Amino acid sequence: MTTETARLEAFSDGVFAIAITLLILEIKIPGYDSELKTQLLRQWPSYLGFFISFAFIGIMWVNHHRLFTHIKKTDDVLLLLNLALMFGVCVIPFTTALLAAHLGHPGARTAVVVYNAAYFGIAVFFSVLWRYAASRNGHLLAGNVDRDAVDKIMKQYNYGPLAYAMAIALAWINIPASLLINLVLAGFFAVPPHYASKTVPGHKAPAT
Amino acid sequence: MTTETARLEAFSDGVFAIAITLLILEIKIPGYDSELKTQLLRQWPSYLGFFISFAFIGIMWVNHHRLFTHIKKTDDVLLLLNLALMFGVCVIPFTTALLAAHLGHPGARTAVVVYNAAYFGIAVFFSVLWRYAASRNGHLLAGNVDRDAVDKIMKQYNYGPLAYAMAIALAWINIPASLLINLVLAGFFAVPPHYASKTVPGHKAPAT
Amino acid sequence: MTTETARLEAFSDGVFAIAITLLILEIKIPGYDSELKTQLLRQWPSYLGFFISFAFIGIMWVNHHRLFTHIKKTDDVLLLLNLALMFGVCVIPFTTALLAAHLGHPGARTAVVVYNAAYFGIAVFFSVLWRYAASRNGHLLAGNVDRDAVDKIMKQYNYGPLAYAMAIALAWINIPASLLINLVLAGFFAVPPHYASKTVPGHKAPAT
Amino acid sequence: MTTETARLEAFSDGVFAIAITLLILEIKIPGYDSELKTQLLRQWPSYLGFFISFAFIGIMWVNHHRLFTHIKKTDDVLLLLNLALMFGVCVIPFTTALLAAHLGHPGARTAVVVYNAAYFGIAVFFSVLWRYAASRNGHLLAGNVDRDAVDKIMKQYNYGPLAYAMAIALAWINIPASLLINLVLAGFFAVPPHYASKTVPGHKAPAT
Repeated sequence: MTTETARLEAFSDGVFAIAITLLILEIKIPGYDSELKTQLLRQWPSYLGFFISFAFIGIMWVNHHRLFTHIKKTDDVLLLLNLALMFGVCVIPFTTALLAAHLGHPGARTAVVVYNAAYFGIAVFFSVLWRYAASRNGHLLAGNVDRDAVDKIMKQYNYGPLAYAMAIALAWINIPASLLINLVLAGFFAVPPHYASKTVPGHKAPAT
Repeated sequence: MTTETARLEAFSDGVFAIAITLLILEIKIPGYDSELKTQLLRQWPSYLGFFISFAFIGIMWVNHHRLFTHIKKTDDVLLLLNLALMFGVCVIPFTTALLAAHLGHPGARTAVVVYNAAYFGIAVFFSVLWRYAASRNGHLLAGNVDRDAVDKIMKQYNYGPLAYAMAIALAWINIPASLLINLVLAGFFAVPPHYASKTVPGHKAPAT
Repeated sequence: MTTETARLEAFSDGVFAIAITLLILEIKIPGYDSELKTQLLRQWPSYLGFFISFAFIGIMWVNHHRLFTHIKKTDDVLLLLNLALMFGVCVIPFTTALLAAHLGHPGARTAVVVYNAAYFGIAVFFSVLWRYAASRNGHLLAGNVDRDAVDKIMKQYNYGPLAYAMAIALAWINIPASLLINLVLAGFFAVPPHYASKTVPGHKAPAT
Repeated sequence: MTTETARLEAFSDGVFAIAITLLILEIKIPGYDSELKTQLLRQWPSYLGFFISFAFIGIMWVNHHRLFTHIKKTDDVLLLLNLALMFGVCVIPFTTALLAAHLGHPGARTAVVVYNAAYFGIAVFFSVLWRYAASRNGHLLAGNVDRDAVDKIMKQYNYGPLAYAMAIALAWINIPASLLINLVLAGFFAVPPHYASKTVPGHKAPAT
């Protein structure tokens, strides 16, 4: 039981925890101008943005956790790839606040494109990090790793960048649809890869 | 001694630590308009809100710590239930700031309802998480777990959602009473479950 | 090698790390009204407050670290005492910002009293926590603990509350002197207890 | 496998994670005055500052991680040196915001000098910390440490303070060049020391 990845995980846990907690700071405390209830209800885009972003950062954490139950060794390249991934996570509080401020305003399209672009980048980094760790016969994975599980994660992660690219393109046609894809993808990455790839026909788990 | 829950605990510790530390940011630094002492004293609702929320997040951490001395395994459902719990924790700095800003103003009732509603949600998530971990003969608990301790926590947690629902309802009748219930509940969840359930007659600890 | 205190330490590390990092947020970015250099230099009370508070939170962390190399078991009382200590740590970013804003203004005395009062509270909590852990023949300490080291820490911590009470009282007579005591005390708690108590005559380390 | 440095690493990971995540708070959410896209593009100095600072804090974390794969023991001096290093890390969100606000304005030179001065201080602290840990025949390093790796880190760290001093001096002649050196140095410290010192002729790794 190696602890080589312990600090990478601790640092990442810190970044995830802070990013997810900072989201709440973007929700404004209403003043005394009009009835509090009315003002609170009028802030619905902030709540929606908060909820989606919380769910997404949470699901990213679950995925990071999932990858590092398999990854047991680190090297300088993995550290830098993980930093790139954390860069994406750190950007989320900004893109969320941008979306919350501009949804329902003239800048909505721009805000949605920026919002989805951040997730696109994250999906790419997740995919590259996993590919790297699993490359050269899984040189950074645990010795007794389940190759089938590795492949299923790979398959699931291949859909990410494509789907987010689609979500970005959709923003020019229909803004709510673009955000909806985001939500559907959150669900897709929340479920474990063996469910996500269950529909692939002729696929069977090894006896391991 | 398994470390399967190590990252879940590290991530949760991070969220608790940040949420509890962010609370202080809601307290404004007075300006130079009038005497500093007077201004500081006038901010008492902020201090009250800070103190109650700090105590509550602290007590939630103690409870989380208590549960995870028994929970030794994780699965995807537990990760998501824990995320839901963290969602509740992250909301506290907002509901606290809302309460501090509107206590003593026309929006006080709304603010108290929102404030107690957050704790209601947290109480529900705590209860569901523990029920799940203890279900199927304690499938996520330590092998040598004290079943009596498990039951006592369950019993204590059953009171939570009910009591907070009552606190919410009370806000329409009497605002200070509604907040008082909150404080009493903080005390109730601060004490270990074997004290909390001591009054239950005919209950005896097993020889284990 | 018990890990019973692992989560208490992780949570505390999180609070220390956040409190110490939040301090920088209190330093304002100057605007474009006058020369940047002049504006930066005029902010000296902010830098002083930042530096003192950073040093103090850092030294508190060193002390917490020192205590928990001896404390190896936890119970519910210790968890709550540690929460009380963390309460004090969380308050520091507020008292620091208050001091930085009002040093050199009419409210300076009030600000210094509040500032020192926070450290007074922390010194009391540190002392109580250590007394509790070391009580009943060191019931929460490591089995092979060096009783002499325990006593030396106790002796050093006895000075804390008294000295901070003095610093508070001094604020009515001389504000810079009150802050100076703060700085001297930072130095006193930074050095290990065996240096701090070296001047005590006739004291000898046991053969252990 | 000693865990003596575990808390120092956990605390440092927390500070790094928070400092790197706070950077995003410095990027303003544009309002509704003009087209969102135009406003977002006009904020390029903020993005540049964010990116450089993120990269730098990330690389500092990688370096800290690298040092503490060798450092296995702590003492009071090391704790204080590490605190000094964390002081430098905590200052970065301020110097970054300062740079982002004043790049392209009359205060640009002052901002760049302050910005590079922070990195100069960090480079000095890194160098001193490593020298201390490796001193007295590596008294805080792992017993089986690779002396050649130790020397290579030392060699790489010797360049840091000098190069940053040059970057500070350059700010009086050419601001973009001063920032460029910063970027080049980020690259230099990102690569492992055995690459960085590869050009040193006649140097060979021991058979260990």
